[in-house]
Amino acid sequence: MADFKAALAADAAAVSDFLDARIGCDLHPPLADAMRYGVVGGKALRGFYVMETARLHGIGRALPVAAAIECVHAYSLIHDDLPAMDDDDMRRGRATVHKVWDDATAILAGDALQALAFELIGEADFPGDVRAALMMSLARQAGVAGMVGGQAADIAAETAAVPFTLDEIIAMQGGKTGALLTWSCMAGAMMAQADVAPLKTYGDAVGLAFQIADDVLDVTGDAAAVGKAVGKDEAAGKATFVSLLGLDGAKGRAVELVDQACDALSVYGDKGAVLKDAARFVVNRSH
Amino acid sequence: MADFKAALAADAAAVSDFLDARIGCDLHPPLADAMRYGVVGGKALRGFYVMETARLHGIGRALPVAAAIECVHAYSLIHDDLPAMDDDDMRRGRATVHKVWDDATAILAGDALQALAFELIGEADFPGDVRAALMMSLARQAGVAGMVGGQAADIAAETAAVPFTLDEIIAMQGGKTGALLTWSCMAGAMMAQADVAPLKTYGDAVGLAFQIADDVLDVTGDAAAVGKAVGKDEAAGKATFVSLLGLDGAKGRAVELVDQACDALSVYGDKGAVLKDAARFVVNRSH
Repeated sequence: MADFKAALAADAAAVSDFLDARIGCDLHPPLADAMRYGVVGGKALRGFYVMETARLHGIGRALPVAAAIECVHAYSLIHDDLPAMDDDDMRRGRATVHKVWDDATAILAGDALQALAFELIGEADFPGDVRAALMMSLARQAGVAGMVGGQAADIAAETAAVPFTLDEIIAMQGGKTGALLTWSCMAGAMMAQADVAPLKTYGDAVGLAFQIADDVLDVTGDAAAVGKAVGKDEAAGKATFVSLLGLDGAKGRAVELVDQACDALSVYGDKGAVLKDAARFVVNRSH
Repeated sequence: MADFKAALAADAAAVSDFLDARIGCDLHPPLADAMRYGVVGGKALRGFYVMETARLHGIGRALPVAAAIECVHAYSLIHDDLPAMDDDDMRRGRATVHKVWDDATAILAGDALQALAFELIGEADFPGDVRAALMMSLARQAGVAGMVGGQAADIAAETAAVPFTLDEIIAMQGGKTGALLTWSCMAGAMMAQADVAPLKTYGDAVGLAFQIADDVLDVTGDAAAVGKAVGKDEAAGKATFVSLLGLDGAKGRAVELVDQACDALSVYGDKGAVLKDAARFVVNRSH
């Protein structure tokens, strides 16, 4: 696990440094400040996956692409935290963007971060076909059929007359959380124009395990360690993996998914070791 | 002017039909409804520019790209209309997205339309280099250095201690309105991998003339014809082209810009006639 944690920390630092230097706004500098605040300093798991799956294919120019996926992830968090959405005051242990600035700035910072993601991939040092494929697939995973659609379904779940079924929750989370995570895992293969199938299987399984672990943490974690409010789903009466599978059932399912994810990596031999550790970390994390 | 109006109407109908059929959401169908409501049925001036500058270069596969720019334009309007931003209840003569649904749906519909724009260009029938260049340039024009940055500056202008100068307004509007309009005009040349310079000059001039005409309409127009509230800038005490140049001065500047725009088209000979009419229409429109 030491290699994984070192890689995660190093990639997160590289992504943060890159974005810190890259983001600017001549037209209205405070907007750039809000973007930077929202995107710099995260644990950058998605960015790590871009970097690590690139390394797996011998590709070393992945940093702008890793930064791009962190821009999309950060924009989604900034918008999700808005009063009109999840209404969260805290994120990563500090005030959310709309609390530090205001709702308008948070909306615009999110909008600009989404655009920046595509700009960064567009500028990256890959052939046009590769850049176009990365951008198109990212747009698809981030949009109405992926992340945004999943987020809308999640909000609808709060007022649904009948709690979501397990299949509905899997579909919703597959969009909300899974789509970007899977894209991050496939990115390295796309950059190398190699087969994406093993990494898609890995990413889908890890993405679902990640969300199950999130539901478990929502029940067992404490807000200080998690860095945001916990117990919200239970209080809202929303169906979760824990409410549908029980705490032990949910934990067991997450472990099964991690095994599936690791099996998918067998094609890469020893080179997949760090990704296997990453999958195990996802279900064992405390925040 | 007959050819221009016919082309505008035909392109707008084609873009609307294309998007009406294209937008769907298995995860949460109401989100697709809100996206469709926000993007279908506009006058599609930016989409027209994509189609017409493509025709100018003998390119006939531009519809997905025209639809893409309308997705970006529509997302920006949906977000701008939010209570946290301009707080407008009416747009195109009917209720805004957040009035028909709610703020969360409007935020997500806008987010998904931005992603859809890149997905559509990614799917278009052009070589990878061309698609990548279109997506990267669109991201840049739509983002912090373009449209979103301009929108943030416009909001800041409302509470600025000192009213914006003419140069500051030109920079702000160049981002807020000009960036997308210029991109639309350059799109046809980018698709053909031809020189974009004449169309950039045309687009920059028309974009600025368009915004001056908007300020004039805000003073002289009536809400029913314009389809949204008028007189807001004056009531808010914001500096506008009219407050800085006077009504006649603003109208005169718009006419000069249209002349510049038309001059830039001389390289295209007679084929530029429809674009010349489009430029004249922009400053003579009543809504």
